Amino acid sequence: GLPPREPQLRTGFAPSVIAIAAVIVGLFFGLTQYTELAENAQEQVERYYKYFIDVQVMIFIGFGFLMTFMRRYSYGAVSLNYFASALMFLEAILMIGATQQVFWNYHRTKIQIDMALLIDCAFCAGSGMIAFGAIIGKATPTQVLWLLFWQVPLYALNQQLVIHTFKALDMGGTIVIHLFGAYYGLAASLMISRKQPLHGLDNPKNSGAYLNDIFSMIGTIFLFIYWPSFNGALASVAYANQTSATYAEKSAQFLAIVNTLLSLLGAVLSVFATSALVGGRFNMVHIQNSTLAGGVAMGAACTLRLTPGGALAVGLGAGAISTLGFQYLMPFLDRTIGLGDTCGVHNLHGIPAIVGTLVAGLAALGQHSDYLEHDTGRQQLGYQVLAGVVTMGIAIAGGLLGGFVVSWFNPCRDETMALPELFDDGPWW
Amino acid sequence: GLPPREPQLRTGFAPSVIAIAAVIVGLFFGLTQYTELAENAQEQVERYYKYFIDVQVMIFIGFGFLMTFMRRYSYGAVSLNYFASALMFLEAILMIGATQQVFWNYHRTKIQIDMALLIDCAFCAGSGMIAFGAIIGKATPTQVLWLLFWQVPLYALNQQLVIHTFKALDMGGTIVIHLFGAYYGLAASLMISRKQPLHGLDNPKNSGAYLNDIFSMIGTIFLFIYWPSFNGALASVAYANQTSATYAEKSAQFLAIVNTLLSLLGAVLSVFATSALVGGRFNMVHIQNSTLAGGVAMGAACTLRLTPGGALAVGLGAGAISTLGFQYLMPFLDRTIGLGDTCGVHNLHGIPAIVGTLVAGLAALGQHSDYLEHDTGRQQLGYQVLAGVVTMGIAIAGGLLGGFVVSWFNPCRDETMALPELFDDGPWW
Amino acid sequence: GLPPREPQLRTGFAPSVIAIAAVIVGLFFGLTQYTELAENAQEQVERYYKYFIDVQVMIFIGFGFLMTFMRRYSYGAVSLNYFASALMFLEAILMIGATQQVFWNYHRTKIQIDMALLIDCAFCAGSGMIAFGAIIGKATPTQVLWLLFWQVPLYALNQQLVIHTFKALDMGGTIVIHLFGAYYGLAASLMISRKQPLHGLDNPKNSGAYLNDIFSMIGTIFLFIYWPSFNGALASVAYANQTSATYAEKSAQFLAIVNTLLSLLGAVLSVFATSALVGGRFNMVHIQNSTLAGGVAMGAACTLRLTPGGALAVGLGAGAISTLGFQYLMPFLDRTIGLGDTCGVHNLHGIPAIVGTLVAGLAALGQHSDYLEHDTGRQQLGYQVLAGVVTMGIAIAGGLLGGFVVSWFNPCRDETMALPELFDDGPWW
Repeated sequence: GLPPREPQLRTGFAPSVIAIAAVIVGLFFGLTQYTELAENAQEQVERYYKYFIDVQVMIFIGFGFLMTFMRRYSYGAVSLNYFASALMFLEAILMIGATQQVFWNYHRTKIQIDMALLIDCAFCAGSGMIAFGAIIGKATPTQVLWLLFWQVPLYALNQQLVIHTFKALDMGGTIVIHLFGAYYGLAASLMISRKQPLHGLDNPKNSGAYLNDIFSMIGTIFLFIYWPSFNGALASVAYANQTSATYAEKSAQFLAIVNTLLSLLGAVLSVFATSALVGGRFNMVHIQNSTLAGGVAMGAACTLRLTPGGALAVGLGAGAISTLGFQYLMPFLDRTIGLGDTCGVHNLHGIPAIVGTLVAGLAALGQHSDYLEHDTGRQQLGYQVLAGVVTMGIAIAGGLLGGFVVSWFNPCRDETMALPELFDDGPWW
Repeated sequence: GLPPREPQLRTGFAPSVIAIAAVIVGLFFGLTQYTELAENAQEQVERYYKYFIDVQVMIFIGFGFLMTFMRRYSYGAVSLNYFASALMFLEAILMIGATQQVFWNYHRTKIQIDMALLIDCAFCAGSGMIAFGAIIGKATPTQVLWLLFWQVPLYALNQQLVIHTFKALDMGGTIVIHLFGAYYGLAASLMISRKQPLHGLDNPKNSGAYLNDIFSMIGTIFLFIYWPSFNGALASVAYANQTSATYAEKSAQFLAIVNTLLSLLGAVLSVFATSALVGGRFNMVHIQNSTLAGGVAMGAACTLRLTPGGALAVGLGAGAISTLGFQYLMPFLDRTIGLGDTCGVHNLHGIPAIVGTLVAGLAALGQHSDYLEHDTGRQQLGYQVLAGVVTMGIAIAGGLLGGFVVSWFNPCRDETMALPELFDDGPWW
Repeated sequence: GLPPREPQLRTGFAPSVIAIAAVIVGLFFGLTQYTELAENAQEQVERYYKYFIDVQVMIFIGFGFLMTFMRRYSYGAVSLNYFASALMFLEAILMIGATQQVFWNYHRTKIQIDMALLIDCAFCAGSGMIAFGAIIGKATPTQVLWLLFWQVPLYALNQQLVIHTFKALDMGGTIVIHLFGAYYGLAASLMISRKQPLHGLDNPKNSGAYLNDIFSMIGTIFLFIYWPSFNGALASVAYANQTSATYAEKSAQFLAIVNTLLSLLGAVLSVFATSALVGGRFNMVHIQNSTLAGGVAMGAACTLRLTPGGALAVGLGAGAISTLGFQYLMPFLDRTIGLGDTCGVHNLHGIPAIVGTLVAGLAALGQHSDYLEHDTGRQQLGYQVLAGVVTMGIAIAGGLLGGFVVSWFNPCRDETMALPELFDDGPWW
């Protein structure tokens, strides 16, 4: 085993957590309250709770186990995923809650915790776990902590812009969750990895092992199963509005579920075919990751009437593109600009999210305006593109800044990771 | 490791998938549409979605991990389960959709995709994964692909006969899913295995290993937990009919859940006792598989008023019979007729499904006619037996034919599997 | 491998199971019936079924996998958890059913099986699995069987006293499930372990291994995700009462979910910080167990208006206390009184349950009486303490007696476990 870095967790990590927790609990006492209990608490539970739990399975089991594929970083994958998701969730209650309810929209004086906000916070943690996938194994726990802490306010700001200001279609978070999380993490990785030799595909520890790959499939398959719940979590109609709702509103959750399911099924097919074609054999990395590209690519367009064939075609395309990304683009970026991407989030989340943003915009051209947030499909397309560009801008700028601060400025005085410590959780466990 | 069979996935598997996917997506564009969205899409989600997801967990996690017990075929188990289930699901939308809605019953011109159809398609994939359990490790991926592709139209035809023509009781699919899937797979296995030495219990790779067996228990326990959802998935009353429904209709889902649960709990008890008795120690194969026989045996009878004691007794019996099947019948069939059955689906699905078919028929004799599909219990018993016999006939004939085509006719020109390749996914991964 | 104990399962375990199963099935035929099907069976399914299944995931996957951390006792952990939970579930239908419906309250002549009773029975099995965690690896399967068999009537009696006689607040079972289960198991362990050298922390087999610890995290994270369902399972308002219910009743399930979630998230934060502080590195035992203390500590108080900050603070405290218990109290009790506690249930369930009992009592002081079971908070506090004391008394007395009978009286004539057999499932598998 590796020598432990014992003082470092005591002097950097633990004080950071204690300080953050103290601030969070103080702000909770001062700024939060339950939703108006009397009126609709039970209704909220019936409407949202099942979806909330499904999303939680994706965040904590799905992402946590998906990243256990590394022989020497499985403790780190599942545990840091657990810790960081919990941290981001609590922080997001304050940040997203304040953004949505206090600064904009309702202008309340207190943040009301309701089921829909909790789903949004789980989404934010999901975005963080995508970013984590780009830096896992290369950052110390303290660096992970502060990088993901810093992601939350940017997430809240970007979500407000995309959903409320630009009124982009993004029910399943293709833009605000996947596109944002992937490029935030990749930008941070670019900064952090600069100091590290062998931080990429040439490091032998940065690869799977037989039993670890089976653990990883637990993550993959739960993500696959619950993805329709993810995309459709917030798409239901409130009980009170069920008679006055438009057809589009009444069918949004059904469409989100069916479109996402068909897209995922299509991606599974195309990934197995593409993986066999490009490699001559099946590659577990492709199976674990690219099969899920169908869910990413459908997040923005899922509430539209794409037709079942259209949804299936999106998935077939997304799966193939993602597999090709793993096979060709990822080694290219690794070699040329030294872009470390431990879990390949660029191929699973980044590129499919670009595809999905465009799919939603182009599909909007043929939709009845009830299904859109803008008056015409052409306007909607324009705002989809704008949302995507702004999201990438905030994500990349924020990730570069965050990565720079934790690695070059290094306020917690973590030693730089030595070569044998890369992709190995031994120093911390 | 084993030498890869690199050209073969490129020349056989990938082109097969691409051709099938092209046909499927074309037919989707031409033949399918969403259910009537305006009227009841949200209601369908509320009524069925939870059950659909539970069934998906069973198909993709349950069957996928149940089959990971082999030390050298865990990649193959969980991945081919994933791929083939997705393929069968999509194909089933077309095949079952056309059978139920176009050829028979509604005589629509388009297949309407609704939540109940999606559950039926997941059931069909489940039937395929049962068949897969009989041939896993002995067939190339291309052979698996075409065998399971061929199972779908037969499944759709048989389901139409059993449910709509014979009006057999089969809410949980004892007949159409388990009986059909098991004998289809066993018949195919008989054909495929003929050319292979050491394709059965005498092959040392055809057995569990400590950690693999724990992975397998993930499958077992999720199947156990969600089985009541499986049997009761389609048993609820539509909202619109809730006042006019009979007592039997209003209680069908409750009965399916409680009867299935009690039967499963009974099976767990009897399996541990029987396993200890026959072997002197606990056998993981029995625990992983036979405890689930309670769910199989209750699939046809679950909506009847069996009394709680009756449901428990069925499970106690089914668990014991299944364990005895693993211990005595399986080696006997392996030795005498060379029936390879990698996962023992004959003992988990085949025999318990025969038991379950008879349980439903005999229990029908004492039920009020509201609970039956025919006027008298005696008629119902007759049709149960007829449904079982027809199902076994179609399954065995279809499986023999399919197995013959992929192994002896061998259109994709796969080489015969060599001895070290049996129960080893090394050539493909 | 270890030599098998072949005759012993045949002569002790199997006959015990057969005898118990025979009695249970007989009593089922004589004493049980379905709930009144006509009136509300479908409503019960809609109200409770999702929560029932979530609890089942916790019992069978959660506890089952949490205990797989031992390198040589993973078969035993997941399998005996499966068997014993099924046994206790069936027994609990009779014992809890008779206690609640026949002896007290309704004075029916038959036990009616409804969804709420099934949830109660799953809770009882959960209590048993907590107790199992204290003795796992040190008791033979036959001893486990009889110890947990004997726990059920005591559980039913204690639940009746705590909930119906004392009217304690305990929606999530802090008192009746966790406090009771932990001290029952610990008392039994004290008896059983007396005869065994190296039954505690000094036995090298009583510790985790890398891949086993990842399996254990499957249990942890599913317990974490579904815990809000556990605490809130029985907190919903019946459909028929939704207009006449008080605000407190209408908000109970929402509060249970949100308070439990926040408490768990807080515990995750404090456990990682505390673990790093006390050990200098992260300890998987802390992560696997203490992060869940937030759910235990919130079980009694979850339906109160604690404020979000209060719920978070409870979790932060419970996580830290539990971690300190693992680090300091557990080795102390191991050394001084020889208290073997294989899974550390004292730290995860025992102490956090004491905390949670007091939290509920103290929080009651500031609540509107609608949220209480007694007229004033002061009375409620008194009855909470009384319930806790009585529960610990019954649990400890019952556990000592049960442990004494199975180990010293030893009716099934199991040989005492030899040193190499401790924490090793080899003799039985």
